[in-house]
Amino acid sequence: MNEFELIRTFFARQPVSRADVAAGIGDDAALLRPPAGQLLAVTSDLLVSGVHFLPDVDPHSLGHKALAVNLSDLAAMGAEPAWFMLNLVLPEADTGWLERFCRGMFDLAQAHNVQLVGGDTSRGPLAIGIEAHGFVPEGAALRRSGARTGDRIYVTGTLGDAALALQHRLGKHRLSEHDFAVLSGRLDRPLPRVREGMALRGLAHSAIDISDGLLADLGHILEMSQVGARIFLDKIPLSPVCRAHVATCGWEAPLAMGDDYELCFTVPPQNVGALEKLRLGSGLRCIGEIEAEPGLRIVDKSGEPYRTALTGHDHFAKSR
Amino acid sequence: MNEFELIRTFFARQPVSRADVAAGIGDDAALLRPPAGQLLAVTSDLLVSGVHFLPDVDPHSLGHKALAVNLSDLAAMGAEPAWFMLNLVLPEADTGWLERFCRGMFDLAQAHNVQLVGGDTSRGPLAIGIEAHGFVPEGAALRRSGARTGDRIYVTGTLGDAALALQHRLGKHRLSEHDFAVLSGRLDRPLPRVREGMALRGLAHSAIDISDGLLADLGHILEMSQVGARIFLDKIPLSPVCRAHVATCGWEAPLAMGDDYELCFTVPPQNVGALEKLRLGSGLRCIGEIEAEPGLRIVDKSGEPYRTALTGHDHFAKSR
Repeated sequence: MNEFELIRTFFARQPVSRADVAAGIGDDAALLRPPAGQLLAVTSDLLVSGVHFLPDVDPHSLGHKALAVNLSDLAAMGAEPAWFMLNLVLPEADTGWLERFCRGMFDLAQAHNVQLVGGDTSRGPLAIGIEAHGFVPEGAALRRSGARTGDRIYVTGTLGDAALALQHRLGKHRLSEHDFAVLSGRLDRPLPRVREGMALRGLAHSAIDISDGLLADLGHILEMSQVGARIFLDKIPLSPVCRAHVATCGWEAPLAMGDDYELCFTVPPQNVGALEKLRLGSGLRCIGEIEAEPGLRIVDKSGEPYRTALTGHDHFAKSR
Repeated sequence: MNEFELIRTFFARQPVSRADVAAGIGDDAALLRPPAGQLLAVTSDLLVSGVHFLPDVDPHSLGHKALAVNLSDLAAMGAEPAWFMLNLVLPEADTGWLERFCRGMFDLAQAHNVQLVGGDTSRGPLAIGIEAHGFVPEGAALRRSGARTGDRIYVTGTLGDAALALQHRLGKHRLSEHDFAVLSGRLDRPLPRVREGMALRGLAHSAIDISDGLLADLGHILEMSQVGARIFLDKIPLSPVCRAHVATCGWEAPLAMGDDYELCFTVPPQNVGALEKLRLGSGLRCIGEIEAEPGLRIVDKSGEPYRTALTGHDHFAKSR
C-alpha cells in the first residue's frame, strides 16, 4: 500500500462532511470558509511515541486521545470545533493498526461534527500532529487572563482518575482490576468538555483545560490574570476510587497530575445562579475563590493551610 | 530553563505583529480574525529527525525550511500567508540551537509577514510540526484539479539543484566545493514562491509545488484533472551545474527528486501573454502542454519519446 492509497483508504473516507469545507483532503492546502463575524480558534499538539504515550498504546485510544486533547483546548476557549488536520509518521503501513486508530479518531470527530481537512503521512518513528480549528463569537472567548477578584473557581467532572490509571499502567501504583477498568477510560478516552465550554460563553470570566494538573493549570489563570486564589481540598471533586486513594496516599494525583482534560474556570458571583441552572452532564463543582493577593492558598478540611511542593508537568523542568 | 521560560525567551519575541491576531501565543488556542469574503487556506507538515532531515542539520536551515515548505504549499494554492503554529519536540533546551533555529524561521516569517500564533514544546526525539494559514479570494484558488486540454505547463526557477546538493551531502554524488556552495542554498533555504503563486490568481488553471519531483507532482495535476500531458526535456529549466550533471548522469535529479519547492502550473493559451508580462523574479519556463489523452509523454531533444521508470518520492512505496 503506497502513501496515496493509504490516504485514500483510511482518511478520505470519513463520517463528517461540512458545508463550510470548500476543499478538504487532496490538494496543497485545505480551503475553508470561516463564518463571518466570529473569531477562528486554532490549537495544535504533537504527540511522540515514548514521550506522550506508551509505545504499545491501543491505537483506538490513541486516535481518540490525539483529537480529544485538541478539542479540549478549543473547549477551554468556549469555541465550537469545526475542522482538523492530521500529520502521521508511522513505522509501517499496518492496516489493522490504522483501522483502529481511525475508528477512535473518527468516532470522536463524528460526535463533535469536526471534519478532517488535510495533513500528511510519512514513514518513521510513530508521531502524531493534530491541529484543530473552531469558532467563537468575538468577545465571548474564554481567556486565561480574564479572572477577577471575587470570581468563584469551578471545575467540571472529577480530578485524578486519569493519573491513577496511568500510575497503575506504569506499575507505580496498584489498582484492583475493577477499579482500573473504571478509571482506564478516563486516561484513554477523555471526553473533551466542548458542550460545557460553549455553555460558559457569557458566564465565565476565564477558563483553561486541566492537562498538566489542577495546580499548574489554575496557576496559569492566576499568572495571566495577575490575581491569587484560595481553594478548599474538601471541595475538589473526586471519584470514589480516587477518594480512597487520597485518604492513604495524599493529594498528588488530583492536584498535580495531568491528563484529566476537565475544565477549570472562574465565574463572577452574579453569574453563579445562571451557571448552576445549566445542569451540564459532566457536573460542576465550586472549589474556591479568586483573591487579589497573589499566590495560591490551599485549605484542608480542618481549615488549616495545606502546604505542598507539588507542581504540574513541565517538559523541561531541571529535575526531570 | 523550563518550558514556559523557553517559550517566553524564544517564541513570544518575534518580528511580526499582525492586526488580525486577537490572541497569539499564551492561551489554550490562538484567536484569529480571517478577512471577510476570502477562503482560509490551511496546510501542515510534520518533520522528524532522521526521516525528513539529517540529525546534524544546521538549525538555521531547519528553522527556515520547516516554515518554507508550508509557505510553499500556500503559494501553490495562490494564497497569501498570514499565521503559523509551531510544535517542537526537542531532546534538550539547547539555547544556542534554539536561537539559530528561531533566526532561520523568523527571518523567513518576517519576509512574508506571517506571525507565529501558537503551538507547544516538549522533550523527546527532535520533531517539528508546523501549520500555516493564509487567505485566497473564493474562486481564485489554484487547484490541482483545474488543468484543461490545451493549457501550457510552466515551472518556476530551475529543477534538480536541491537534489544534487542532497546527493552530495549523502556521499552519493560528488560536487566540486564551488558547485556545492552554489547549490546547497537551494536545499537548505528554499524560497517559497509566494509572490508567484499570488500573481497566478486568475491566470493559471491549476498549480502544485514540486516537493516530490516534477514527474510525481505534475502527475498529481494530471490525475486530479483527468488529463494527460506532453513535456519536452530540452525545455526543462536547469542551472549550469545541473545541466552538466544531466549530460553525464541523466535526468533523475530534475525529473524525479524532490525538495525544489518550485511551482508547476498550467495556463490556458489566452492567458500566456499576461503571464509572460509578469516578469517574476524566479523566472518562468513553458515545458509542455496538457493533452486530452491520459498519461505523461516525455519528448527528448531529438523529438523521440523518452522512456523512464522514474517516479517521485513515496514514503510507503514497497521498494523503500
